[in-house]
Amino acid sequence: MDIARIEAAAKRLAGHARRTPLLSSPFLDEIAGRRVLVKAECLQHTGSFKFRGAWSAISVLDPELRQRGVIAFSSGNHAQGIAAAARMHGIPAVIIMPSDAPDAKVAGTRGLGGEVVLYDRASEDRDAIGARLAAERGLTLIKPFDEPEVIAGQGTCGLEIAEQAAEAGVSEADVIVCCGGGGLTSGIALALEARAPGLRVRPAEPEGFDDVKRSLAAGEIARNAQLSGSICDAIVTPQPGELTFPIMRRLCGPGLAVSEEEALKAMQLAFRHLKVVAEPGGAVALAAALFHGDEIEGNAVVCTISGGNVDPEMFKRALDLPL
Amino acid sequence: MDIARIEAAAKRLAGHARRTPLLSSPFLDEIAGRRVLVKAECLQHTGSFKFRGAWSAISVLDPELRQRGVIAFSSGNHAQGIAAAARMHGIPAVIIMPSDAPDAKVAGTRGLGGEVVLYDRASEDRDAIGARLAAERGLTLIKPFDEPEVIAGQGTCGLEIAEQAAEAGVSEADVIVCCGGGGLTSGIALALEARAPGLRVRPAEPEGFDDVKRSLAAGEIARNAQLSGSICDAIVTPQPGELTFPIMRRLCGPGLAVSEEEALKAMQLAFRHLKVVAEPGGAVALAAALFHGDEIEGNAVVCTISGGNVDPEMFKRALDLPL
Repeated sequence: MDIARIEAAAKRLAGHARRTPLLSSPFLDEIAGRRVLVKAECLQHTGSFKFRGAWSAISVLDPELRQRGVIAFSSGNHAQGIAAAARMHGIPAVIIMPSDAPDAKVAGTRGLGGEVVLYDRASEDRDAIGARLAAERGLTLIKPFDEPEVIAGQGTCGLEIAEQAAEAGVSEADVIVCCGGGGLTSGIALALEARAPGLRVRPAEPEGFDDVKRSLAAGEIARNAQLSGSICDAIVTPQPGELTFPIMRRLCGPGLAVSEEEALKAMQLAFRHLKVVAEPGGAVALAAALFHGDEIEGNAVVCTISGGNVDPEMFKRALDLPL
Repeated sequence: MDIARIEAAAKRLAGHARRTPLLSSPFLDEIAGRRVLVKAECLQHTGSFKFRGAWSAISVLDPELRQRGVIAFSSGNHAQGIAAAARMHGIPAVIIMPSDAPDAKVAGTRGLGGEVVLYDRASEDRDAIGARLAAERGLTLIKPFDEPEVIAGQGTCGLEIAEQAAEAGVSEADVIVCCGGGGLTSGIALALEARAPGLRVRPAEPEGFDDVKRSLAAGEIARNAQLSGSICDAIVTPQPGELTFPIMRRLCGPGLAVSEEEALKAMQLAFRHLKVVAEPGGAVALAAALFHGDEIEGNAVVCTISGGNVDPEMFKRALDLPL
């Protein structure tokens, strides 16, 4: 993985992915005690950065292979990114989802043209179903983060941060990134290493699901004790990726972990002052920037809002919190 | 008023105002039955397009005069636009607000550096207070819409729409604009006349407060019967402006009027599919695009979300509506 691969992905994404804005508000600066620059990936197609990696991975496939279609396991943002990128390529996308996935996510993925295959978590083997379908129909599996072309696609977000931070006059700062498996985090870190070496990436996670933070501190991959029970579902993964962790270990500063209440408050503040919709997992980096200032150095901080796919009930919970 | 004045304003705004994105979603296209392109001015500084006109009017002042400061009457988006643009120029801004204005708006304007002067609606004369302060301190009054440099500033939004619609492959379409006094509507109409003549502006208003629609139909300025009682407070004005109406009459297609429920539903759909926050008055154009398709022609429609300054209670009301 190197910058050339990210730049190649950027060429393929040009005119297809959105160049999302770097937002700011004097009210957020005041809360944080420093300038806060927010990369609003919730405004990307399908409401999250995942579209970048999906487009990158699909667009690089051999055309004959690509025409047969792609397959992914996901009930969340990766599913929607794959479905939308596949439809824009005019190819089929099969998304394997658990039968107890929320109706809205199933409907959303179908609405983007994805062929949803449901399986029963208790009685069926997800991987076996995927392998059978892939073999029968010649589908290519697109993994959610531990895949070089996916990392390269997410890295295009880092190229934009490098340019937009320079335009804002910021050349030295921490760049806090919402982190699940580490695809976005490692991609941005590689882009900034080459294009803005004064910007240092720091992963942000929910408390209790901070496998990347603990892995970075230990110097080796650590796992989460649990995998459910977080409102930040979009960024909860068992452990950092085999490809992403070495990149994060080499390039990232210490991780940051925020409480669910802090994530919800960050959602409300993004509503009030940036006018964008963040989902809980997409708000952890902003929460770290606003409420963990003593763990951050410098006069400015950059953070991602990585996604905005949140249902109205959860959003209302964020709006109801006293600040 | 001509395109040269708008282009001069665009030069002054460059690097200060945001170039807001033109967003879209296949889900909105499906509801509307045609492509829907949404100019998200809620992402502008201070959460509305008003920053453009404020910056335009302040930046064009003679430097010596400007240094003394500016004054505006407003309890809403114009107040915040003026306060922010003045602070970025390093000059004082006095905002005259009624003493019964919501605390959040007073605090918001103060938070942006504005000096708020409260007056009692029942016992005090707003204009007299403003005239006295302006004379004493040499402040320049910036009117909210019926002022050429304000119209020119709002017109820069139209220059961006012309470019962004062309990038999206749209050269013929209605451009629905949330319309109060007509500053944004007339500015965009002038910009499109010169830069994208296949794009025709149509004002959108709330039912019962559709003075511009009725004025266009009658060929002369008509007034609203009432001035309060709309949740779309940001775009309720007594009548079209003396400067803006002739421009709208020459360039705009028929107006569109939407119900409050349609505006609230458009807010929810912008939340779900665009991940942006719209206020009721800022959502009327999207509501017209989505729910008044039979009054629109063509395969694509462009609309503005003109602002996102909405309190959490009103937003929750939008989220709770069945679609």
